[in-house]
Amino acid sequence: MKRTSTHLADGRELIYFDECDDADRTAADLRDLPPPPPASQLRYDPLTDEWVAVAGHRQTRTFLPPSDECPLCPSTPERRTEIPAADYDVVVFSNRFPSFQHCEVVCFTADHNASFASLQPARVRTVLDALADRTAVLSGLPDVEQVFCFENRGVEIGVTLHHPHGQIYAYPFVTPRTRTMLAAARRHAETTGGRNLFADILAAERTDGARVVAANAGWTAYVPAAARWPFEVHLVPHERVPDLAALPPADRDLFAPLYLEILRRLDGLFGTPMPYVSAWYQAPVHADRDLAYLHLQLFSVRRAPGKLKFLAGSESAMGVFVNDVVPEEAARMLREVVLP
Amino acid sequence: MKRTSTHLADGRELIYFDECDDADRTAADLRDLPPPPPASQLRYDPLTDEWVAVAGHRQTRTFLPPSDECPLCPSTPERRTEIPAADYDVVVFSNRFPSFQHCEVVCFTADHNASFASLQPARVRTVLDALADRTAVLSGLPDVEQVFCFENRGVEIGVTLHHPHGQIYAYPFVTPRTRTMLAAARRHAETTGGRNLFADILAAERTDGARVVAANAGWTAYVPAAARWPFEVHLVPHERVPDLAALPPADRDLFAPLYLEILRRLDGLFGTPMPYVSAWYQAPVHADRDLAYLHLQLFSVRRAPGKLKFLAGSESAMGVFVNDVVPEEAARMLREVVLP
Repeated sequence: MKRTSTHLADGRELIYFDECDDADRTAADLRDLPPPPPASQLRYDPLTDEWVAVAGHRQTRTFLPPSDECPLCPSTPERRTEIPAADYDVVVFSNRFPSFQHCEVVCFTADHNASFASLQPARVRTVLDALADRTAVLSGLPDVEQVFCFENRGVEIGVTLHHPHGQIYAYPFVTPRTRTMLAAARRHAETTGGRNLFADILAAERTDGARVVAANAGWTAYVPAAARWPFEVHLVPHERVPDLAALPPADRDLFAPLYLEILRRLDGLFGTPMPYVSAWYQAPVHADRDLAYLHLQLFSVRRAPGKLKFLAGSESAMGVFVNDVVPEEAARMLREVVLP
Repeated sequence: MKRTSTHLADGRELIYFDECDDADRTAADLRDLPPPPPASQLRYDPLTDEWVAVAGHRQTRTFLPPSDECPLCPSTPERRTEIPAADYDVVVFSNRFPSFQHCEVVCFTADHNASFASLQPARVRTVLDALADRTAVLSGLPDVEQVFCFENRGVEIGVTLHHPHGQIYAYPFVTPRTRTMLAAARRHAETTGGRNLFADILAAERTDGARVVAANAGWTAYVPAAARWPFEVHLVPHERVPDLAALPPADRDLFAPLYLEILRRLDGLFGTPMPYVSAWYQAPVHADRDLAYLHLQLFSVRRAPGKLKFLAGSESAMGVFVNDVVPEEAARMLREVVLP
């Protein structure tokens, strides 16, 4: 893999991750860009002991542009985009409308009409390598406590750009849900003589099998027993590592076919592209790295054709999820999807 | 107020709360109803130490019926609904498609086309009295740890019935968000010699004033400094009580005009009915009643005309909210709405 770092016209960093070592990355960003917007504010909520990002400037961010105005497509002589090159494999750059100080965009392919599920396994590997690279680099910055790599897919989940892309948030704190999970893992370790909670759940799911959707030598994909979302799949490596930067090459290779299979099963479920959130849970940078266990949580808000799960009173106000799809049934439905 | 308890054809309880003492509540439910669906499951998630309700039967629940098939309108000789009477003020009954063992529906008015914002203050008082009554009764059941009264309003937030109604969930555990808030309140009390966190926040907001939207002798309505939602207003009584059952009559009366004003300001913001969640935070039944502070959190997912706030990766997976509307700006916009 060839890694080339460059800068956009307003000073933001852009990095090409190329599968061929002869890619030409000399194209410059010739746009006349305004200076970056004012930084977002982080506000502390004393009621919950949590942080909220207040990002007023994002109200004017690019919103569902037509495909011939997509800012994530390669540049052409007629139209300059966020990516100066005429083609690319995977590219990462700082978000022009950041929610936090360190927010990056990850373009998975130059093909505007592709989806992650349509990528080749080799490209998935390149994406993983890019995420691992960014996790390592961002983890080295002084004010970063957790690096979160994720993809939001579908207008049903609020996506404002159709071009296949993910995002990386480098939070200056450990996120509330991660704190909750690590607190549970700590209690588990204390009451079991040091056993790892995530490893024990994985072993239990593999033994039970009722909620396993697919597996290979390195990873198991299962619907968790207490799934919050109508269709929720956790992809867990069999060997514990704290984060993507620590994921061995063999496990990166094994992830690709399994993840692509799960994404295609999701899309096959109702014969229409599934909206989803795909979220990498990584260890905090400076705490609990011995407790954490890298894994991916993939979930969709679609509960039936034409019906979405909404987070209303119980979920949004109380934090209690009501799931209308029984997890074992979700796993069975996903297993029974006939792939092309 | 006249309170009349009766039962529906399948055994569920229905209670009329009438503003006139001469209301005739003898009408029987003449429908031939199937037995109630199997109970939902509560599943424990070891990863987060939280409970999830799995309610497979709810997939078939009534979904956006046309108004002439509304199950929450009064019954007529031609059509029997969930409410046997030909008219009603406020009525509460057990949900036919419950998420938990104790889930109730609260109809605010017999008028299908009304909204909470269009109610008279006297009716708001009757609704509060009904919620207080149910809070007291449900709190007395052996397996109830927290009573949650709320209204979801708008298809944008997933509402499946248009008729103005709220819901009551009686959880057999203290909800995650309540646990989080009470833990913060406990730490605050310990580090301030016993001061109440909610009272201190209310006092600070009243002193600052920048985020106060409206207030009267009993209540203050403000946008919290670290608001999670584009438009979020907390309505807090000046005197602390643990729950609605303990709210004095004078404070019930004073709540009505302030809440109606805030709802009308929300609807006036973009000239279109605002989707919202309106959530009463009550003390747990058996714990921390000295720390808790009854208040209402009202929030909308609409961030601009035609644009909604979605809970995507950061919010749903990590629990970190990104709010695109600056709280002081939200408060100013709400204050500046010209009411008819």
